[in-house]
Amino acid sequence: MYRDHNNSELNLSSVNKKVTLSGWVQKIRDKGFIIWVDLRDRYGITQLVFDSERTSSEMMEQAKKLGREFVIQITGTVLERESKNDAIATGDIEVLVDQLTILNSSETPPFTIEDNTDGGEDLRMKYRYLDIRRNPVKNKLIFRSKVSMAVRNYLTLQEFVEVETPYLIKSTPEGARDFVVPSRMNAGQFYALPQSPQTFKQLLMVGGLDKYFQIVKCFRDEDLRADRQPEFTQIDCEMTFVEQEDILNTFEGLTRHLLKEINGVDVEEFPRMTYDEAMKTYGNDKPDIRFGMMFGELNDVAQHKDFKVFNEAELVVGIAVPGAASYSRKEIDKLIDWVKRPQVGAKGMVYVKYNEDGSLKSSVDKFYDEDDLKAWAEKTGAKPGDLICVLSGDANSTRAQLSALRMEMGNRLGLRRPDEFAPLWVIDFPLLEWDEDTQRYHAMHHPFTSPKVGQLPLLETNPGAVKANAYDLVLNGNEIGGGSIRIHDQKTQSKMFDYLGFTEEEAEAQFGFLMKAFTYGAPPHGGIAFGLDRLVAILGGQESIRDFIAFPKNNSGRDIMIDAPAPIDEDQLKELDLKLRSK
Amino acid sequence: MYRDHNNSELNLSSVNKKVTLSGWVQKIRDKGFIIWVDLRDRYGITQLVFDSERTSSEMMEQAKKLGREFVIQITGTVLERESKNDAIATGDIEVLVDQLTILNSSETPPFTIEDNTDGGEDLRMKYRYLDIRRNPVKNKLIFRSKVSMAVRNYLTLQEFVEVETPYLIKSTPEGARDFVVPSRMNAGQFYALPQSPQTFKQLLMVGGLDKYFQIVKCFRDEDLRADRQPEFTQIDCEMTFVEQEDILNTFEGLTRHLLKEINGVDVEEFPRMTYDEAMKTYGNDKPDIRFGMMFGELNDVAQHKDFKVFNEAELVVGIAVPGAASYSRKEIDKLIDWVKRPQVGAKGMVYVKYNEDGSLKSSVDKFYDEDDLKAWAEKTGAKPGDLICVLSGDANSTRAQLSALRMEMGNRLGLRRPDEFAPLWVIDFPLLEWDEDTQRYHAMHHPFTSPKVGQLPLLETNPGAVKANAYDLVLNGNEIGGGSIRIHDQKTQSKMFDYLGFTEEEAEAQFGFLMKAFTYGAPPHGGIAFGLDRLVAILGGQESIRDFIAFPKNNSGRDIMIDAPAPIDEDQLKELDLKLRSK
Repeated sequence: MYRDHNNSELNLSSVNKKVTLSGWVQKIRDKGFIIWVDLRDRYGITQLVFDSERTSSEMMEQAKKLGREFVIQITGTVLERESKNDAIATGDIEVLVDQLTILNSSETPPFTIEDNTDGGEDLRMKYRYLDIRRNPVKNKLIFRSKVSMAVRNYLTLQEFVEVETPYLIKSTPEGARDFVVPSRMNAGQFYALPQSPQTFKQLLMVGGLDKYFQIVKCFRDEDLRADRQPEFTQIDCEMTFVEQEDILNTFEGLTRHLLKEINGVDVEEFPRMTYDEAMKTYGNDKPDIRFGMMFGELNDVAQHKDFKVFNEAELVVGIAVPGAASYSRKEIDKLIDWVKRPQVGAKGMVYVKYNEDGSLKSSVDKFYDEDDLKAWAEKTGAKPGDLICVLSGDANSTRAQLSALRMEMGNRLGLRRPDEFAPLWVIDFPLLEWDEDTQRYHAMHHPFTSPKVGQLPLLETNPGAVKANAYDLVLNGNEIGGGSIRIHDQKTQSKMFDYLGFTEEEAEAQFGFLMKAFTYGAPPHGGIAFGLDRLVAILGGQESIRDFIAFPKNNSGRDIMIDAPAPIDEDQLKELDLKLRSK
Repeated sequence: MYRDHNNSELNLSSVNKKVTLSGWVQKIRDKGFIIWVDLRDRYGITQLVFDSERTSSEMMEQAKKLGREFVIQITGTVLERESKNDAIATGDIEVLVDQLTILNSSETPPFTIEDNTDGGEDLRMKYRYLDIRRNPVKNKLIFRSKVSMAVRNYLTLQEFVEVETPYLIKSTPEGARDFVVPSRMNAGQFYALPQSPQTFKQLLMVGGLDKYFQIVKCFRDEDLRADRQPEFTQIDCEMTFVEQEDILNTFEGLTRHLLKEINGVDVEEFPRMTYDEAMKTYGNDKPDIRFGMMFGELNDVAQHKDFKVFNEAELVVGIAVPGAASYSRKEIDKLIDWVKRPQVGAKGMVYVKYNEDGSLKSSVDKFYDEDDLKAWAEKTGAKPGDLICVLSGDANSTRAQLSALRMEMGNRLGLRRPDEFAPLWVIDFPLLEWDEDTQRYHAMHHPFTSPKVGQLPLLETNPGAVKANAYDLVLNGNEIGGGSIRIHDQKTQSKMFDYLGFTEEEAEAQFGFLMKAFTYGAPPHGGIAFGLDRLVAILGGQESIRDFIAFPKNNSGRDIMIDAPAPIDEDQLKELDLKLRSK
């Protein structure tokens, strides 16, 4: 053992003890006759002292050779400090060194190992092992481990069994793209990495395991948007003999447990909102309900005048931004520019200042009188001092644009407090969604989701209206989990595949084993999957998942530290019966 | 909720309660006027009763339509049974059904869902979801989950942090074969699936995480021997500022905790044995020390006569098989045939019967007198009643052959009791082993293992003699874990790569990031990895890992349930910039 204490353990009760410590040199203050060294490890920092009056000159010389991030082992005596430091656990003491061993030297790190580093994203990623030495990153990894354990403890107490499902499975052209893995032993054939263990967990339910969970890596070979990873971690869960209500209650319990255990926050029963209501009220199926600015639909009170823009719009809708009536013309113009950015895509924005004195002033005073604007204020819940922002156009795009504006204003006004937690169930999702590219309906969740009882016939007449037993758990404006009650009879599943455009042969080739399983007494079942990366980030009060992942990939899917992916040997390709087309 | 109790919960205290249960029809006994149905779920079995005197004729009709593995929901009243069944938790009661809903019907399963099934291996694998309904398989999966949780709880209490390392990494031609994963976004480039998170966990130590663990899938595209899987699970661990002794103590603690928690077995301190001693005494680096039959080397007492076979042998070595002196000539001949099987490979076997009356009778009486045989008996520890079996030839092969015989006799004599646990540390492994194929030394463990202090210079003169800080944890004749203290300075690592035949460019291309990391203050560190599949099987008293894996692959690496691997679309290949050579 290179130490008998770690660097957070020593305090006044240790004074006069002889101790052995190891760690990294965080900081050196060399006053010539006295040298202080901050010794760091995962647990904390201990101040070492070399003092020409009490330390041999030989060791003073050695201490002078130390540099940042050297790894050392020391033996010394714990002394009470003269000037104490309340900021650290060991701040009352220091260790007078009598033996010093340099275990390893260090080149000057490419960025400072401090909470606020001077290293940019790329440099930090390339030297991730140095980045992890920094408290903010190290603590996030420890935090993640704590969250995972809390999840496992809770689910285990609820009799869930963690079962490992296979990583080398079968490719399915359905949905997002699979990573494939050529098999050397079966030339010309490929495994695929799972996008989720969906079918396996359903088979475990058919197998009678009753309650399953797994914290598991999943893979998606998609073009990466910011803050998406080709490999990501899910808390994957499934239960048998349950209805939607049972799943919502169980995982509300899990989430409440996490908020309590990890964040010390008590949350009452989670509110529920239908998908339709969420879209209508927040323009978004994952609304952040920590703040208001609910949508006010204005068609009734804005399409009776000569303002063509509104009259031709499918939807006119506004929000009341609290306290923003005082915005200057310039500020408002900037806001209009903001909604017109291609990322948002609005054509323009109408605004109404609801002044503190109760008067109303709008950008469309030409068309609307004070009574009209009063009605708008009422519909958007505006109070004196608020700025009403109104967008219009086709319903879907307009809602998305106004939702983006609402979130932006929430951020700007500091209404999205990272230490406040507002979970929400969004339920009654549509079964299908229209895909413009392929000009057909696709499963919104996945093809195993069951439609609401009695709605199957609607598939023929009004497919878009069919609602599913599908639900998302939303936390602070992020979808942290989603799931559904599954189809468990072979006929319905078969009909669903047929409806989604699978030929009988395709359905059989890809999901034959599941349909077969359904003929041997498949029980009613359903489940949910949480995105662990996102969940952990939100519980940690952060929006970005990157630093909650030990070795993340960049936006091109590259690990720049190890430089992967990379070409492989021609021999290796040969063994896999493969060659590159472009060569 | 489809039930208010599971099928193991009801007992005499529930009598007269109205209950709702769900589950599978395990068994039907139809006496015409009365029908008993065993209702099964994960938790147990409850007896249902339909009785023409108390049940409507309509429901009697419905009950008669039930078949094995139908999924049903019932409501009924708990009654005390007349003839109780002590074998099950609910054996004191039965439930008189007044409502019956068939949730799903079932075709006749392809094998019986009983503890002892009539299904063969292939059929069970194809319908694994039905196999999992059987108690022996279901219980093994639950057992595995319990072991994993016990591991996590123990390590978490010891301040280990579970960190997820990446699955999409870089291919290294070193060692066993990587599965590779073509990258669509980086055409012509490949990720590899990790054979272990070795370099990442070392980087986490360089990063100061201090104590890391992970229960993680690893992948190896090897020709599969029986009971090997292309994907397997490791408990991967690494610690900083430790010496070998610290690691042995920590993971002895873990193993002792598991044996106590899972098996209720207390084990004293684990014995330790050097690799050389294990090879000499048991012919094996993972000896089963639950039983004796230690090797007696006989060169001194068997090479002084005219028996050419022994005189020309590098090694003459025997074991005393307890109580086998009474074997008939025929039995002994069969044993000789057994050691001559190609799987064992001995050329023959010399035997000595040490009769109960103290007399000695051997197959080589022509060459050796009673004094010689007495000496053999002494060397092998034989007692009257034992059969001494002697093999000879080159040392390595002969040891392996005699070890195989020893294990076989241990099995035959019932000395390998599944409920007895004999852990053992094997330490001081050689750093290198000679590889006949490539005619050079390879790293026995891996190229990151550190040689014993001061032995590095031996590399030049007698490489085979260099010992490493490497250790295996052996349980009941199986290696359940192995690890080492790692090299942590760049110079030694570089020298090791050089010695193992890497050019500087190769070492840089494959492990440049690790060597770079070693220049920034890498601390002393070491670790261990346990094979979870094997560990769980042994704790469960089984030799085969297959049923402790939910969805195992067969010996050709195929999942025969989902039929993977499989060909993929030409389009998919094109997107990956690949084509098949053989097409």
